[in-house]
Amino acid sequence: MQLMEEKIIAEGQVLPGGILKVGSFLNQMIDTAFLKEMSEEIARLYADCGVSKILTIESSGISIATAVGMQMGVPVVFAKKHKTSNVDGAVYSTSVHSFTHNTDYTVVVSSDYLLAGDNVLLVDDFLANGKALLGLIDLAEQAGASVSGAAVAIEKGFQGGGDKLRAQGVRVESLAIIDSMTDTDVTFRP
Amino acid sequence: MQLMEEKIIAEGQVLPGGILKVGSFLNQMIDTAFLKEMSEEIARLYADCGVSKILTIESSGISIATAVGMQMGVPVVFAKKHKTSNVDGAVYSTSVHSFTHNTDYTVVVSSDYLLAGDNVLLVDDFLANGKALLGLIDLAEQAGASVSGAAVAIEKGFQGGGDKLRAQGVRVESLAIIDSMTDTDVTFRP
Repeated sequence: MQLMEEKIIAEGQVLPGGILKVGSFLNQMIDTAFLKEMSEEIARLYADCGVSKILTIESSGISIATAVGMQMGVPVVFAKKHKTSNVDGAVYSTSVHSFTHNTDYTVVVSSDYLLAGDNVLLVDDFLANGKALLGLIDLAEQAGASVSGAAVAIEKGFQGGGDKLRAQGVRVESLAIIDSMTDTDVTFRP
Repeated sequence: MQLMEEKIIAEGQVLPGGILKVGSFLNQMIDTAFLKEMSEEIARLYADCGVSKILTIESSGISIATAVGMQMGVPVVFAKKHKTSNVDGAVYSTSVHSFTHNTDYTVVVSSDYLLAGDNVLLVDDFLANGKALLGLIDLAEQAGASVSGAAVAIEKGFQGGGDKLRAQGVRVESLAIIDSMTDTDVTFRP
């Protein structure tokens, strides 16, 4: 998506440690006109897949998942992070490793909302090592749901998670794939 | 909003301890068609107020705030919860008391995104004791921004927070106001 690359170049900031700051339009503040364009593009990419639900992980993916759900006319289900695996009610749960915080956390979703027969599209803002998406795929499999694929706003291609998922046969669509970042420059995958 | 009352009656569940479970359309899963109707109603209520930004608090308010921002064509700014007040960068911060968890937490928003001259609409999913909205008003005041008012999906009228805010001169619009709840019944404010 040419527009996403232009947006990153215009408004993104590279911080020390390989962090891309996109607070002005995706994280701390949402540019809702741009969000609409992102969701239209994702809806177009997965238009003919029979998607019945969007599945995302709280909290940074909620905005884009909500916009995609509205655009595609399907519900959005949130997997929630819990510090312990001790969760009430009937849930599916999985463990996700966070490299950012160097810890494992438990992610749960109510079995009332993710069903056998569902065909889910995974939506998130960032894709780096792919652990969050792998966790969502695990939750979908536990529910007996199928997965059309994943759609993310920005993929950090140099962290390899997206390509690992593709190698496993998961369809991954990223609105921009960053191949490398220096302190002054961002290079996109052609 | 008649539609919201009907939705609560049809899909809401009252749990012990005065908890209203609306996971099927507002919390754990978002009914995006209904979310669109909520956002249209909120946009109508605040249509002539010159709102420049939506301000919400992560994470349960993100979906409805995003939908309202898209409907009104303005950006959405997230105030974020932090366990400590030790936050990098230029931020406004305030302390909010959570009755649910019986603890105070710090809420911050970047000073890059909340500006003097902004006219913000506060959006959240629930209004109970009003502490979260008071925190957001404090953040707006620190930034020198004005506040058009607040819009929430469901107000627990019997907890008094909404009426306290109204008594202070804050415009508060709730799509449904619950006057009382028993284990089997929900009564709305006429």
